[in-house]
Amino acid sequence: MESFFALLEQRVAESASLLCVGLDPHVSDLPAPTAEAALDFCLNLVRKTAPYAAAFKPNAAFFEQFGAPGWAALQTVIQAVREQSNRLGSFIPVILDAKRGDIASTAEAYAQSAFETLGAHCITLNPYLGRDSVEPFLRRPENGVFLLCKTSNTGAGDLQDLLVDGEQWTADGPARTTNQRPTVIPLYEHVARLAQTWNLRNNVGLVVGATQPEALARVRTAVPEMWFLAPGIGAQGGDLETALRAGLRPDGQGMLLPISRGISRAEKPELAAAQFRDAILDIRRKT
Amino acid sequence: MESFFALLEQRVAESASLLCVGLDPHVSDLPAPTAEAALDFCLNLVRKTAPYAAAFKPNAAFFEQFGAPGWAALQTVIQAVREQSNRLGSFIPVILDAKRGDIASTAEAYAQSAFETLGAHCITLNPYLGRDSVEPFLRRPENGVFLLCKTSNTGAGDLQDLLVDGEQWTADGPARTTNQRPTVIPLYEHVARLAQTWNLRNNVGLVVGATQPEALARVRTAVPEMWFLAPGIGAQGGDLETALRAGLRPDGQGMLLPISRGISRAEKPELAAAQFRDAILDIRRKT
Repeated sequence: MESFFALLEQRVAESASLLCVGLDPHVSDLPAPTAEAALDFCLNLVRKTAPYAAAFKPNAAFFEQFGAPGWAALQTVIQAVREQSNRLGSFIPVILDAKRGDIASTAEAYAQSAFETLGAHCITLNPYLGRDSVEPFLRRPENGVFLLCKTSNTGAGDLQDLLVDGEQWTADGPARTTNQRPTVIPLYEHVARLAQTWNLRNNVGLVVGATQPEALARVRTAVPEMWFLAPGIGAQGGDLETALRAGLRPDGQGMLLPISRGISRAEKPELAAAQFRDAILDIRRKT
Repeated sequence: MESFFALLEQRVAESASLLCVGLDPHVSDLPAPTAEAALDFCLNLVRKTAPYAAAFKPNAAFFEQFGAPGWAALQTVIQAVREQSNRLGSFIPVILDAKRGDIASTAEAYAQSAFETLGAHCITLNPYLGRDSVEPFLRRPENGVFLLCKTSNTGAGDLQDLLVDGEQWTADGPARTTNQRPTVIPLYEHVARLAQTWNLRNNVGLVVGATQPEALARVRTAVPEMWFLAPGIGAQGGDLETALRAGLRPDGQGMLLPISRGISRAEKPELAAAQFRDAILDIRRKT
């Protein structure tokens, strides 16, 4: 079985796209605050933008807020992407943006929920609980994860920017034996380096916000091969060209750009998606 | 309106209990792998153990794995706790163990989902995204959060034990100006200290595993007043008396002990819950 990122790269080649269409049915964008309206909103987006999408990314929160009917809608949306894949003759992965993270049997249940019950192909996860909380999601190479590394929000630095040198606390206290200044890196870079060591089946990527190009460049240097999911273009103010120059691999791949409101609020979402796809392609050719 | 922890302390007084009954419908514990079986499992536990429970803690993963019907079951379980509160004339809080964590409007949607759609009173959250990802959950003092601080799993140390001194990365690199060894603490302690500064409405607590009494004692020293949710007693091997001695406040409160399989797998769950409640009470009286 091919790995998740091999499958994604095939789709990137077939669609000439690094665009990841975000499916975020914000209540304020719906004609009514119902699961049915959220479903219609997403099905319309999926149908119109599929030819330009390297992947789709539904955000679990906007479905969960409608309770059980919202959860059913999410399942239907993922099924609709599968139908578009069949129609286009090209597999389009679904990345469930859920930012889960739990231990042992609970992580198993979340993996079951994402990959079996819902039928998503990849999920975003929070790394705070460590390796064993991620492993249940990595067993099948065709399923992938994007681990939160450096997020695009203002409070991201509260933990993610803290300086670490990789040394861990022990019951006897810190083990540092000299007063020499060790090599320090921000926690998010440490997470990236850890994630690289967990990526044994080519199915671990990183979420690195497009709003901080310096961080993108730092993480790219630290882990030259890994795939990034880089939110923050458009509504959150990130600049597309700056982000791509900072985060692309030399092969012009390795980076998915999720866009939500920039497409869903456009008069013609299919046109907006095509334009984003083409703008990214132009920059890749120049870079 | 009273704060979440004021409401919890009232329930602790009325039930003489620090026991938090976990509602984890593991498939392996159900007669059939269905949402209906999960619902029956939980309703039975709620009915039998309510008099001994300071709080209930359903884990979202074990409901999500059944899709929309699982989500409906979770809503019904929370409603059943409300009915027991009415029957007993004492408000029993529901802590949704969901370990969510997302930004801005997405965090708002998760707060809506937990507190409005599901009707839970408190939620577990992951702190990796920083203060602004937590704030949407804190606006109403009667709703609370427990932030993951030090978890009970084997990989917890991968990030949580990393040494930090509170200094953050800047675009100019690390700002340390001397070679002197700064005061370093494990990341989980830094999270506890940060969380204390976020606790402006008496509705922020911490998840600190009962499996590492040294960590419990460290966090208790760092934040003398905060409430802990301390999983790991029983199935995960934590010792009750050691954990209580390490984590209780001098007033004999400040710590909820979640027990799941130790109660649900007992021949008589009501007896097991009563015994846990009384064992905790004995230790509180001696400590």
